[in-house]
Amino acid sequence: MDGWSASAENPDVLQIAATPEPPYYAVIAPAVLSGDVTGYPELAVRLMETAHEIDGFLGIESCFQGRFTLAVSYWRSLEAIDAWREHARHQLAKNLGKTRWFEAYFTRIARVERDY
Amino acid sequence: MDGWSASAENPDVLQIAATPEPPYYAVIAPAVLSGDVTGYPELAVRLMETAHEIDGFLGIESCFQGRFTLAVSYWRSLEAIDAWREHARHQLAKNLGKTRWFEAYFTRIARVERDY
Repeated sequence: MDGWSASAENPDVLQIAATPEPPYYAVIAPAVLSGDVTGYPELAVRLMETAHEIDGFLGIESCFQGRFTLAVSYWRSLEAIDAWREHARHQLAKNLGKTRWFEAYFTRIARVERDY
Repeated sequence: MDGWSASAENPDVLQIAATPEPPYYAVIAPAVLSGDVTGYPELAVRLMETAHEIDGFLGIESCFQGRFTLAVSYWRSLEAIDAWREHARHQLAKNLGKTRWFEAYFTRIARVERDY
């Protein structure tokens, strides 16, 4: 999983996101990777790059440990999240898809009300 | 940081939390550890154990990668979060405290509105 190493070195990921004053939205995405993640690290990097181009993207925090990954991305609105999801769905469909890469995954949409 | 290894092997942490139907609350806590985390892993384990005893605790997802940690805990209500924060504050005050262990930390309180 060399692709992960490259991603792990990305200082944009392994740091606290500089978000604006609440309210804003968070997409909390824990996942357990399967044994075969061929192609996934490359897609993850591309998806991340694209997120930055979506209007309303505020930042992302993520890390992975063993086969567990936890990513929290921040967005100005639910509309921005929808735009992102639509894009990610297309990209995943063009590739091997979640069912192969992930043993389990879950998504939570939350409204950040306070931060400190 | 041997304490981290023990914690890393904890299957209770490196998995997707089994939360109930929304709405519920999430505490999103990214942090960058300092070079000296003496005593912190032990406290983190104790704090986690105590969280399970607080009424309204629903689960936690967390991982760490290098010096970056990301933890998302889930709660039934803001009151449960307040109870947890009060407890954690006391524990940290009795120990070395956040200023020594963390180079940076941030906390976001969010209301989970949807999950899928």
